[in-house]
Amino acid sequence: MRIPNHIGVIPDGNRRWADNNGLPKEMGYREGLNPGLKLLKLCREAGVKELTYYGFTVDNTKRPTTQKKAFVQACIDAIDMIASEDVSLLVIGDTESKMFPKALLPYTRRTKVGKGGIRVNFLVNYGWEWDLGNLRTAEKNKRKVIKELKSNDISRVDLLIRWGGRRRLSGFLPAQSVYADFYVLDDYWPDFKEEHFYDALKWYNTQDITLGG
Amino acid sequence: MRIPNHIGVIPDGNRRWADNNGLPKEMGYREGLNPGLKLLKLCREAGVKELTYYGFTVDNTKRPTTQKKAFVQACIDAIDMIASEDVSLLVIGDTESKMFPKALLPYTRRTKVGKGGIRVNFLVNYGWEWDLGNLRTAEKNKRKVIKELKSNDISRVDLLIRWGGRRRLSGFLPAQSVYADFYVLDDYWPDFKEEHFYDALKWYNTQDITLGG
Repeated sequence: MRIPNHIGVIPDGNRRWADNNGLPKEMGYREGLNPGLKLLKLCREAGVKELTYYGFTVDNTKRPTTQKKAFVQACIDAIDMIASEDVSLLVIGDTESKMFPKALLPYTRRTKVGKGGIRVNFLVNYGWEWDLGNLRTAEKNKRKVIKELKSNDISRVDLLIRWGGRRRLSGFLPAQSVYADFYVLDDYWPDFKEEHFYDALKWYNTQDITLGG
Repeated sequence: MRIPNHIGVIPDGNRRWADNNGLPKEMGYREGLNPGLKLLKLCREAGVKELTYYGFTVDNTKRPTTQKKAFVQACIDAIDMIASEDVSLLVIGDTESKMFPKALLPYTRRTKVGKGGIRVNFLVNYGWEWDLGNLRTAEKNKRKVIKELKSNDISRVDLLIRWGGRRRLSGFLPAQSVYADFYVLDDYWPDFKEEHFYDALKWYNTQDITLGG
């Protein structure tokens, strides 16, 4: 079976999950923590080399304060959990804004945690315009555009999996995702099941890779 | 019904259609001409304000010469057909390469054709890296990134429809497509039917618009 090198994850549907379970919306985020760790372990077992989680974006910070606090805390907790695994960890996002949690600053340089291993990227206070903004001041040169992104330490995404039924990228790494095969699950992220991952891999295995050629 | 302002179109599957019909691959492209015109008329009727066709990309020019000749000719013919309609036409792509057909140079500035009307954009020898490349030399300023793209006369895409079953953007306007709802049809583009368009609109009508907020 052809295993994607790099999987992107959009763990959507936390608020709708909370709604459906009679909880306030902001209670949905912490339900995404265990799924995140399970998915990391499955990716490692399958031989995936790199995994990028969509934490929260600059656009998301327009939401009500209780929700903002909850998703920021969930990101901090998720990264805590990941940082007790053997990974090569990178947190990436706009650190100049006060929405960026200071606790995560140490990981904004790629950090070998434990024995190292699978590259795990976590987008925190990420913005697609912020990411592309670097290009404006880069000198004219012959390097590939992708090398001049703020997220230039994140490689091309092969398979992008989104939970929660929406069929859009919502600003997820626009340059690295230009050729990503996009798999959407209707289940909400807190309802993550191992089968979701295996189904996504099976589907990916049936796709061709042309990169436009 | 909520009608998208701007629809992007990835008319894929021409070569597979030709294969399935016992024809050489390059014979598939011309079968996409009438569908393109039909779709334009349907969009106008429905009140769509802007329509962008994915013609061919810089990446596509790695293909065999017979195919290249055929898809370039199909783009020229398609734009000829569109230019006998009432539209506001723009052809956009890398004009500095010899792959860009000289016949289309007049349309690389937005041109009112007939009585004008719906904005029709046609990507010809387009490359996502080419499009973003402008940002490198743009002066640092407070304008939105999207205003500094080479494709800055193309607005945000609301609904992106792809024929031919593949679930990826293949480099289609990465900045304008960050929030596009992505609808994929398994049918090949030469097998276009009106229902495809109406089904896409019906589906779009069930989606929410959050822009991350």
